[in-house]
Amino acid sequence: MHEDRILLAHGAGGLLSSRLLNEIFLPYLGNQLLDRLEDSAVLDLDTQSGEISFSTDSYVVNPIFFQGGDIGSLAIHGTVNDLAVSGARPVYISAGFIIEEGTSKQDLERIVQSMASATEEAGVKIVAGDTKVVAKGAADGLYINTSGVGVRDSRVKLSYNRISPGDSIIINGTIGDHGATILSEREGLQAVQGLSSDSAPLNNMVQDILNSGSGVHCMRDATRGGLGAVLVELATQAGYSLEIDERSLPVREEVRGICEMMGLDPVYIANEGKVVVFCASEVEEQVLEAMRNSRYGGEAAVIGRVQDPDQGRVKLRTMLGTHRDIDLPSGEIVPRIC
Amino acid sequence: MHEDRILLAHGAGGLLSSRLLNEIFLPYLGNQLLDRLEDSAVLDLDTQSGEISFSTDSYVVNPIFFQGGDIGSLAIHGTVNDLAVSGARPVYISAGFIIEEGTSKQDLERIVQSMASATEEAGVKIVAGDTKVVAKGAADGLYINTSGVGVRDSRVKLSYNRISPGDSIIINGTIGDHGATILSEREGLQAVQGLSSDSAPLNNMVQDILNSGSGVHCMRDATRGGLGAVLVELATQAGYSLEIDERSLPVREEVRGICEMMGLDPVYIANEGKVVVFCASEVEEQVLEAMRNSRYGGEAAVIGRVQDPDQGRVKLRTMLGTHRDIDLPSGEIVPRIC
Repeated sequence: MHEDRILLAHGAGGLLSSRLLNEIFLPYLGNQLLDRLEDSAVLDLDTQSGEISFSTDSYVVNPIFFQGGDIGSLAIHGTVNDLAVSGARPVYISAGFIIEEGTSKQDLERIVQSMASATEEAGVKIVAGDTKVVAKGAADGLYINTSGVGVRDSRVKLSYNRISPGDSIIINGTIGDHGATILSEREGLQAVQGLSSDSAPLNNMVQDILNSGSGVHCMRDATRGGLGAVLVELATQAGYSLEIDERSLPVREEVRGICEMMGLDPVYIANEGKVVVFCASEVEEQVLEAMRNSRYGGEAAVIGRVQDPDQGRVKLRTMLGTHRDIDLPSGEIVPRIC
Repeated sequence: MHEDRILLAHGAGGLLSSRLLNEIFLPYLGNQLLDRLEDSAVLDLDTQSGEISFSTDSYVVNPIFFQGGDIGSLAIHGTVNDLAVSGARPVYISAGFIIEEGTSKQDLERIVQSMASATEEAGVKIVAGDTKVVAKGAADGLYINTSGVGVRDSRVKLSYNRISPGDSIIINGTIGDHGATILSEREGLQAVQGLSSDSAPLNNMVQDILNSGSGVHCMRDATRGGLGAVLVELATQAGYSLEIDERSLPVREEVRGICEMMGLDPVYIANEGKVVVFCASEVEEQVLEAMRNSRYGGEAAVIGRVQDPDQGRVKLRTMLGTHRDIDLPSGEIVPRIC
């Protein structure tokens, strides 16, 4: 009976730890490097072709299963995307699990399985891992940290300091889908039809965007804090103001509905499959085309433009034609969204 | 008043997240790479000289402060040591924090400060980070994941498959210090004088050991599950039996006392600054000397020897001259020991 649940002893480094590894983790995630079970994995990276990128993120999303994904696929997509938007090709991932005692083994297995599918689609391998179990009440279900290593072509130069006046600001689709999905599931709003997380690996699409050439200046994925937080950060770092056209922002009706109901602005709601690209207007069409040719960019749109130096503000031209400033969200938006 | 505590909003990716970063993390951990705050850090690694190693571990130790260290220094030492014992020189570390709402900012700052000292001693840099905040009750204090990247000289060949009959088995000092310290603090046994965690960065000592040459066959750090778990794992992987002499095992009186009181075997108690080295008997003296010249190897000792193939068992010759088998610990030893 209790064999269906994770016990503290599964995290003690003994017999049960070893069984958990052999019964749940290795069957799905195993590969030549991970199977060696050494203290660290020796990577096979083609560093002739570029520089090495390194990234980390912890995932604490609640609920752990949601429409369009789960904490496992999210943990892979998130770190793959962090590497991708910095211009790197993600190659290797590490996974650290913190599991609450009593978590169902079946749930854990479903999550590990989902991580395996996500790594396969993204073309990355999990080569290092760790599992800790904490007593009931010392975590809520399970948390996953993924760190990632990738290789960035030395010719790719993406940075906020390449953002220039006149640059087009482009996003690969609708905003707020992930956050609105999590919110509606948490609030027990079942059956909001058409609502699903946008969690997705963007690395292949990003490579296609990079093929548009050196006119691509900067990219960021708009996760926690939503599009708004990313734009404010970049405006501040680059020292230019950004003008965003609210009418051009792709927002699903269902997302708009939930946001209105809860008094939230879709601009601040988390995405897990959206990249914001800053590029010279000459390559705008190429970037849009690269997005639209991808499974994850069908609703790509130019949403605004970089203006002359002006205190690094983000100005939203509203549907009514008026202007309002977008600031960093200052309070709690939606906790445990990712 | 509530400004002394971590709020959910500190993890929301908005204004308070940004303040936390600028007030607590960057002042202590900042460096050229981390300060850029990009989605991923571009590493400067001399890959001409070797292969890249990658490792991950999550730390959930309870209590977060203990005699001889805290969760911050532990998180650095643990990952530094995982890289070191695989033969790599640790270079870059990522840090992912999961913080319980209400955690004191002062505690967090003390931990970050301790991480900074630990990275300095080990000669590594934190170049990527992430902070999540979960509601009160959804974690116990805070948890830290560290992942590490290092460079391994291609000439260094350490692996369980190099373990050979006749090899000496050497440890750099007393066993069980970390686990016994955590246990005694948790049980409220104050003032067990002389008891302190052995948490330490072993990378410099390991480099000196590696200078003993190709006679050094394999190393492991004896953390969760203690010396016992490491020996059983290696005996199984290598396919040789190991004979350990109980009389030669360095154990502090205080540790022995606590273990007897709680019915535990020091062999299974966690260490955070102990490496087990398998080497040809010809280099035994050199390895011992390298350890004894280090701050962390004063009580180094040869504890046993590799025997002929014999089912991969670990046999302990007891103080009384009898033999007993050491198996993988099968139940819960000490949860949240690291």
